[in-house]
Amino acid sequence: MDPDAVAKAFVEHYYRTFDSSRAALGGLYQDASMLTFEGDKIQGAAAIVAKLSSLPFQQCAHAIATVDCQPSGPSGGMLVFVSGSLQLGGEQHPLKFSQMFHLMPTPQGSFYVLNDIFRLNYA
Amino acid sequence: MDPDAVAKAFVEHYYRTFDSSRAALGGLYQDASMLTFEGDKIQGAAAIVAKLSSLPFQQCAHAIATVDCQPSGPSGGMLVFVSGSLQLGGEQHPLKFSQMFHLMPTPQGSFYVLNDIFRLNYA
Repeated sequence: MDPDAVAKAFVEHYYRTFDSSRAALGGLYQDASMLTFEGDKIQGAAAIVAKLSSLPFQQCAHAIATVDCQPSGPSGGMLVFVSGSLQLGGEQHPLKFSQMFHLMPTPQGSFYVLNDIFRLNYA
Repeated sequence: MDPDAVAKAFVEHYYRTFDSSRAALGGLYQDASMLTFEGDKIQGAAAIVAKLSSLPFQQCAHAIATVDCQPSGPSGGMLVFVSGSLQLGGEQHPLKFSQMFHLMPTPQGSFYVLNDIFRLNYA
């Protein structure tokens, strides 16, 4: 499958899951996974889901603007770089963000997120 | 050395070199290196330097706002995620950008850039 199509499908799945049931994101991470969220460093699927679930908003909707991807080396991983905007429930203006994912292949032929770095784009 | 300090030192070196002598960035890339610049995909140190040198501005100054880093897996690589702004000569307002680098260790104990993805943050 075309890597760009894989990256786009992953990103759409990720944000659809984030916006509908954040706790279900746990299946995309493993114990070695790392998240840096606005500078906060978190490791492991359980801690990452706890962090994402504890963010101070309930309703949100991500809109994807760009998705770039590159193979990350001989391990079969893929780097995915996203820009987009995040509309929070009750807020008037969406927030712009940039996020990168390092996807690693699983024995089942799928991917998990090894690295995840998120930053809001401050104006 | 602390990975965050390595990442910060790399980023400062990279943008200082970019702003003073873009052609010298070639030493940071190798043949396998990839750059995605605003969606354009370029591979190899020579082609990457040609692309960066051909950008339609002469004078520029990068200012770094945030640097996040994570180890990228068993190969000893490091992911570096940067946000900042770029002031072009003759322009009134700086442009915000986000950029990620995947640094891989060299046998000499240094790093080269395997992956580089750059996007302007459109307002």
